[in-house]
Amino acid sequence: MKAIEESVHKVMMEAAEAFEVYKHISGKQKAQFLRNIGEEIVNLGDELIQTVIEETNLPEARVVGERGRTVGQLNKFADLVEEGSWKEAVIDIGDANREPLPKPDLRKMLIPMGPVVVFGAGNFPLAFSVAGGDTASALAAGNPVVVKGHPAHPKTSDLVASAIQKAIKKNDLPYGVFALVQDDGIESGKFLVQHPKAKAVGFTGSGNGGLALVKLASEREEPIPVFAEMGSVNPVVILENALKNNYSDIASKLVASVNMGAGQFCTNPGLLITIKTEGFNEFVDALSNNINEATGAQMFSPGVLRNYLVNADQVMSHETVTTIAKGDEVEPNVVRPAIATVSAADFMKNPHLHEEVFGPFSLLVVCDDTKEVKDVVASLKGQLTATLQAKDEELTKNQELIDLLVEKCGRLLLNGVPTGVEVGAAMQHGGPFPASSDSRFTSVGVGAIKRFVRPVCYQDFPDQLLPKELQNSNPLDVWRLVDNSWTKNAI
Amino acid sequence: MKAIEESVHKVMMEAAEAFEVYKHISGKQKAQFLRNIGEEIVNLGDELIQTVIEETNLPEARVVGERGRTVGQLNKFADLVEEGSWKEAVIDIGDANREPLPKPDLRKMLIPMGPVVVFGAGNFPLAFSVAGGDTASALAAGNPVVVKGHPAHPKTSDLVASAIQKAIKKNDLPYGVFALVQDDGIESGKFLVQHPKAKAVGFTGSGNGGLALVKLASEREEPIPVFAEMGSVNPVVILENALKNNYSDIASKLVASVNMGAGQFCTNPGLLITIKTEGFNEFVDALSNNINEATGAQMFSPGVLRNYLVNADQVMSHETVTTIAKGDEVEPNVVRPAIATVSAADFMKNPHLHEEVFGPFSLLVVCDDTKEVKDVVASLKGQLTATLQAKDEELTKNQELIDLLVEKCGRLLLNGVPTGVEVGAAMQHGGPFPASSDSRFTSVGVGAIKRFVRPVCYQDFPDQLLPKELQNSNPLDVWRLVDNSWTKNAI
Repeated sequence: MKAIEESVHKVMMEAAEAFEVYKHISGKQKAQFLRNIGEEIVNLGDELIQTVIEETNLPEARVVGERGRTVGQLNKFADLVEEGSWKEAVIDIGDANREPLPKPDLRKMLIPMGPVVVFGAGNFPLAFSVAGGDTASALAAGNPVVVKGHPAHPKTSDLVASAIQKAIKKNDLPYGVFALVQDDGIESGKFLVQHPKAKAVGFTGSGNGGLALVKLASEREEPIPVFAEMGSVNPVVILENALKNNYSDIASKLVASVNMGAGQFCTNPGLLITIKTEGFNEFVDALSNNINEATGAQMFSPGVLRNYLVNADQVMSHETVTTIAKGDEVEPNVVRPAIATVSAADFMKNPHLHEEVFGPFSLLVVCDDTKEVKDVVASLKGQLTATLQAKDEELTKNQELIDLLVEKCGRLLLNGVPTGVEVGAAMQHGGPFPASSDSRFTSVGVGAIKRFVRPVCYQDFPDQLLPKELQNSNPLDVWRLVDNSWTKNAI
Repeated sequence: MKAIEESVHKVMMEAAEAFEVYKHISGKQKAQFLRNIGEEIVNLGDELIQTVIEETNLPEARVVGERGRTVGQLNKFADLVEEGSWKEAVIDIGDANREPLPKPDLRKMLIPMGPVVVFGAGNFPLAFSVAGGDTASALAAGNPVVVKGHPAHPKTSDLVASAIQKAIKKNDLPYGVFALVQDDGIESGKFLVQHPKAKAVGFTGSGNGGLALVKLASEREEPIPVFAEMGSVNPVVILENALKNNYSDIASKLVASVNMGAGQFCTNPGLLITIKTEGFNEFVDALSNNINEATGAQMFSPGVLRNYLVNADQVMSHETVTTIAKGDEVEPNVVRPAIATVSAADFMKNPHLHEEVFGPFSLLVVCDDTKEVKDVVASLKGQLTATLQAKDEELTKNQELIDLLVEKCGRLLLNGVPTGVEVGAAMQHGGPFPASSDSRFTSVGVGAIKRFVRPVCYQDFPDQLLPKELQNSNPLDVWRLVDNSWTKNAI
């Protein structure tokens, strides 16, 4: 066995061993642990902030904000598991006197699956990396986590891992509840996904990376689920009345959204779809002006910048595409946003114009009428989000378009911008393939915990041997579906 | 395009077209439709019963019972969608005054995914075939269904399809909401799973069949989920005190369970695990006596019988295996159950002894002590069910064994037999791989509807344009998670 494979084997075996203890700890204890991780991350103080800045070029305000989001996510999962109803306890009370056969007593709830492998994301060095949403949700569910750190921010990963390890010690949990594996190449990630003790995988990143993991996992002797969030172009459809009345406001909000964080978000609005009607020329002018006025931002690295320039240029140099405005590279590594335009017909003919350009870029697709807007939307692949810019009165007559947008996305926004993902129970961050590998789950918000659990049913078990969530007296005071009605009442 | 491919294409396009209408019909209307299907099945009267008997050799009482279960399932899904809370509405109310950024209004609920391909099962010609659990749950969710009929009961399939079609007409639904495809070979099934309009697959049957579908679906341009329920050996662990005190009762119940329906159930107890201690010899004698006294039953077909005899013989002729008792084939196509025994050490050494023998067969694994019982359980693959035969006082000291059993199964029974699957909200029929392709879902009980839906989130939509489940006034009176609390209250 090679050294890398051996060390992966060691951490996975430690994780499996830790699972035997960790799966039994109470929601209260897990909540304490998650909150402590957040506290220890804050305790890393300015060293963490400066390390992230150094490794990612992100501005300080964003890094501080992202740290807040990361700690906030940990606390939200802490609240969720402390309250306890997320386990979806379902009880069908037995009836020994039922004819012709007695009715068994059936009690079902969600249980953790085992060690989860998490791949740190490049574009969220804190909120979707070592102690990010995937880790928080897997730990909250009761699973040990092994993180493959993103090679772009190894020092950040080490620091955050040290915070988790402090929280493990403080809570007297087994060492193997968490491990960080760092590796410049792809080998350790591959061994982690292939290891028999791995039970699920969380990933945020490129389509190629995500699909490779899905393939690896499906080829295992025991296939395991991979939750790959692979980004999308997040179409924004601007209807006639909105265009006519609000073009200026829409243009400035869209350019700000495209430019935010140098466009390095999975919800970057990379595709604008509108109709050549009243206000259209003014809208294009406004886009152009906003781009020319936009301040540049640094991308994560010279490599990310290079890819962006190549990909954006490939679109803009396409014979059917016209550049609307293109911010200059004002200093090394600093880009300003760019927007280009193409006719609906040409867009639909060229599948590669449908691909995401990672960075502050958006493509404006120009349609002749609403019918063509629908054709364009129908031609799209699955998306994390879709946005509709419309006046109230034109919504009711566009139900078919709304249907089409719903079919294509996980989250449909009205008159907003897709960046700025709220972390809450109602958030859906996961759309039809290829935006995500499994559209039935979300990677943002407390619903993310559902990725790493499965139901188990106890039949005819004596009350005292059941998990507390299923006991008659409902000692944890959780919501339960008892004989098909939601209640907190005891039985 | 070949004729088969063309006809598959036609039904799938009709299903996709029907989806545009069907996805919008109310829970009340879907409930009416599902109940009408059940009524039309009953209206088929004795013709259906006799056709099933002719095609499957099942005794009349079982066929009538299975028809009752099938209609009961349809009615349960009807109740579920009429009540409406299954859509899991989650609402995080917006707050325009939140600092530093306004909080968006987020409202999420489950929506149907699109046409579902269902493979009829051989061993449940009604309850898991054309109008069985997979079809009922997919239709209840709002998806059109295309069934690939099982080649063993084509006339039954045609009759049940005609009942569904009558219900479609009665409810004025699009023709394409349901279609039956019949084919002796595997071609049409393959084209159905590969068709771009197919969004999910339901299957109950052999491991080979299920895994082939999983592979096909994962190789599509847009991979889709396959819910394959592939059976298991359903281990029954008998602890010392239970053996000593109840050996006679346990033996008679187990043999009855093995023999029920000629063992042609996916929950057939194909593996018994116990300790060579007080009562063991008496238990083996009781098994033997019960088998010798058992009445035979017909298997589905001479082909199924042949496979059973070959597979059972292969196990019984293994050098480490001893036959306890083996019922004779009393008349052509009629078998009686057989039980053989093997030591724990030999069982663990021979992986093929872990495989299911489809039919009235069970293998008794003999352990030296509880430690060895745990080793045997740890060596097992994923199972639909696991059963523990134990006295209350010995349960508390065997928490580790219970943990191991939970890890291996979807449903854990105490002092029962795994056959006789209750259809209810708390049922879990689906276990870790390879019992099922996705252990996070159940194929029996109303929870089965969750396989064919995905969440969508509406951000900042005006009330009147939201689906009713998400509107402020809660006009459908469903349970909703509003700002993290379950309630039926309006907002």
